Amino acid sequence: MNFQQFERIFKPRSIAVVGASSNPSKMGTMFLMALHTVGFPALYPVNPHEREILGLKAYPSVRDIPEEVDYALISVPADKVAAVVEDCVSKGVNAVAIYTSGFSEFNDEGREKEKTLVKIADGKVRILGPNCLGAFCLQSKLNLALGSVEEGEVSFISQSGGNVETVANLARKMGVGFSKVVSYGNACDLNGTDFIEYFGEDPETKIIIMYVEGVKDGKRFVEVTAKVSKTKPVIILRGGTTQGGSKAAASHTGSLCGSNDIWNAVFKQTGAIEASSVEELLATASAFTHIPKLNGKNVGMVGIGGGAGVMAVDECEKSGLSLPTFSPETIDKLGEIVPPIGTSIKNPIDLSSYAQFNPPLFGKAVEIVSKDSIIDGLILLYHNMSYIPGLLQEIERTTLDKDLSKPAIAVLEPAIEIEEIKEGHLRVGVPVYNNLAHAAKALCNVATYCERVKFLKKHAI
Amino acid sequence: MNFQQFERIFKPRSIAVVGASSNPSKMGTMFLMALHTVGFPALYPVNPHEREILGLKAYPSVRDIPEEVDYALISVPADKVAAVVEDCVSKGVNAVAIYTSGFSEFNDEGREKEKTLVKIADGKVRILGPNCLGAFCLQSKLNLALGSVEEGEVSFISQSGGNVETVANLARKMGVGFSKVVSYGNACDLNGTDFIEYFGEDPETKIIIMYVEGVKDGKRFVEVTAKVSKTKPVIILRGGTTQGGSKAAASHTGSLCGSNDIWNAVFKQTGAIEASSVEELLATASAFTHIPKLNGKNVGMVGIGGGAGVMAVDECEKSGLSLPTFSPETIDKLGEIVPPIGTSIKNPIDLSSYAQFNPPLFGKAVEIVSKDSIIDGLILLYHNMSYIPGLLQEIERTTLDKDLSKPAIAVLEPAIEIEEIKEGHLRVGVPVYNNLAHAAKALCNVATYCERVKFLKKHAI
Repeated sequence: MNFQQFERIFKPRSIAVVGASSNPSKMGTMFLMALHTVGFPALYPVNPHEREILGLKAYPSVRDIPEEVDYALISVPADKVAAVVEDCVSKGVNAVAIYTSGFSEFNDEGREKEKTLVKIADGKVRILGPNCLGAFCLQSKLNLALGSVEEGEVSFISQSGGNVETVANLARKMGVGFSKVVSYGNACDLNGTDFIEYFGEDPETKIIIMYVEGVKDGKRFVEVTAKVSKTKPVIILRGGTTQGGSKAAASHTGSLCGSNDIWNAVFKQTGAIEASSVEELLATASAFTHIPKLNGKNVGMVGIGGGAGVMAVDECEKSGLSLPTFSPETIDKLGEIVPPIGTSIKNPIDLSSYAQFNPPLFGKAVEIVSKDSIIDGLILLYHNMSYIPGLLQEIERTTLDKDLSKPAIAVLEPAIEIEEIKEGHLRVGVPVYNNLAHAAKALCNVATYCERVKFLKKHAI
Repeated sequence: MNFQQFERIFKPRSIAVVGASSNPSKMGTMFLMALHTVGFPALYPVNPHEREILGLKAYPSVRDIPEEVDYALISVPADKVAAVVEDCVSKGVNAVAIYTSGFSEFNDEGREKEKTLVKIADGKVRILGPNCLGAFCLQSKLNLALGSVEEGEVSFISQSGGNVETVANLARKMGVGFSKVVSYGNACDLNGTDFIEYFGEDPETKIIIMYVEGVKDGKRFVEVTAKVSKTKPVIILRGGTTQGGSKAAASHTGSLCGSNDIWNAVFKQTGAIEASSVEELLATASAFTHIPKLNGKNVGMVGIGGGAGVMAVDECEKSGLSLPTFSPETIDKLGEIVPPIGTSIKNPIDLSSYAQFNPPLFGKAVEIVSKDSIIDGLILLYHNMSYIPGLLQEIERTTLDKDLSKPAIAVLEPAIEIEEIKEGHLRVGVPVYNNLAHAAKALCNVATYCERVKFLKKHAI
């Protein structure tokens, strides 16, 4: 991998948009508009039939652009792509992203067309796609309709363009910000492994998440992922985990998905973390963002409600977390402040309606539990609390001012968005989730990763 | 079971609220207020220290109430409950719900106290609880703070009072309406099985859902559930499926949860349906409400987006549904209307951005698929559509006017609430879900149930 070449994919100084036109419903035009709107500086629309698009001078071909071109977005019919790539080689373009589909995901003829593209590019121009959206980077304003995404330290590698949209749309409310995103589609040249390797070295990326349908270079994928996983968490969501899903993936990106057995071995060997849904992927990214270190899987839980607590423990244990028995000192201290009847001071703590009438009780219980040496992390279970006006705010105020000693997450169920609660918690490093199953899995993933990294260091692996 | 006695629990002509007071933060007062607010006709507050509460005459004891009392809500300290039950026996009260906790869920002494209550009641007064909220019925205005719950044909049996609130709060947005709800807590007298039996006979109940931590009368539970399941779906969410959860359940309702192996056998033998979360419980209730009959598990899916489709198939197959290959005629007809490149007309159908620019394409594809004899049901996958203004509305308008021939559900992801879309779909019998995993599981549950009922009928079991 040439680090500079990859760096320039995400931070191009200039971009040609081939296939932009005066028709606003064409993808090329949408790309141009998105880049123009955020103020990307050097934009060159390419279209032989237009002289100006969105007020920008249009060029008949990439060759005709008078300035240097680092990156080209190609959205022209499939049989015209090869000629554009040829132009890009002549022009000395660093990389192209081909949006056009109708290649290996479509039929054998398309597969041959892809091979031709790779031959023409000859390693001089690197290809993203075809059948992809290409690269995104907020810092460089290479922002293709990522909506309200925030900057952060997560980078996302997606074989699917649509899933970039899905992830982008959910990320903000899950407390995840992005450094870079790439949709790489059919991967005729650059593939997922290349981007894992690059993000592994990229100092702006601390956490790598991935949506993948198929891997073509199994051996290299395992080597690179294992190496990168030692210093940065790599969280992978697979598409095509079932027979039907894997058939659908073949039509989608022309991928062979690989069996679950093989993948299980890959996860074990590389230390990459598996997520089973987009929500779990983002919850885990959020946990790594806000809780970079967790010493173990023993959690203490504080909440209101017995049935809610029972189901919460079930979810925690299913995800791999444990709720150990508190020390006798902890039990004693809790017994001094929590009334005995209708409550529980075992783990999980159920403060019942007492915390409704005395919200500071919540924070006091949390503080006591956080001091117990058996506890590695805390879960604040805000179950049904949003129905009592002001209760959550009061519990937040009287809990987050405590020294919690241990990493903590909060779970706000049912799933509602209370922006100021989420922000207030994030300010003190407590991510808020709307689904306990995802939250517990995310926390467990952080613990597993930390444990592995510690083990590898200890044994100098 | 005496049907009339149970009927009167849910449709009492008069209620005594023992422990109501002028203190608005006491549960007794809250019960009284809730019933008073919805206009329950014959309400009798009982409190020896007050003469009037909320403008209603208060009585020193249940015995002093001059009119007949069908139902008493008891919220007094644990050591005073027995005397109140004695009063209720003298007065000839039909049933009492004991909110007070501190009984078998608390310690051995509490367990003895419970036994005393049963002895005093002597089968003349039936007991709900202790440690419960008792009965709810919208039709009879026995509505204890169920919020914005709608009337419907689902009845809910819950061992946890808090989960009544959780379910009630989620039900409306999931298209579920209730006939009756009961929280039965420690179940010292009436237990979950009694209510399954009653709802099995109740003509106003068509679907039974349950949250249970432990069952005391295993043999009778199996017999009753198997019998009721023949005519009404019984959907059960268990609390305490893990070791930790089961320990928490012991402190919560004093329950022994039973092993997963035993429960698996129970589900198989009785035909009851297992739900693994509150969301899955309600999604299944919603599916049975709107799709009473489904001939099999073969679904056809229509959507926009390749990666979304791949993951959707994975979820469907994990839940037990299949996405079979369409017939050659279906493929031909789809091929006539769906452009070939960047799309898929295999199952699932990915209309890609073509449906964005030509929304009626969606309904046309759905109609073609619905006519394929291999397809039992349809899933309309509205993935990321809400980001394009008016698109969903246009697809709704041009899809729901078609003769869909087969039962259909819609999945609107990411999870957003668009009230008019949900209502528009429900009007033509298409429930809308915000989570594909729950939706697929719910649809599969309906198919499994219908298949079993057909089998039992065929073999006259």
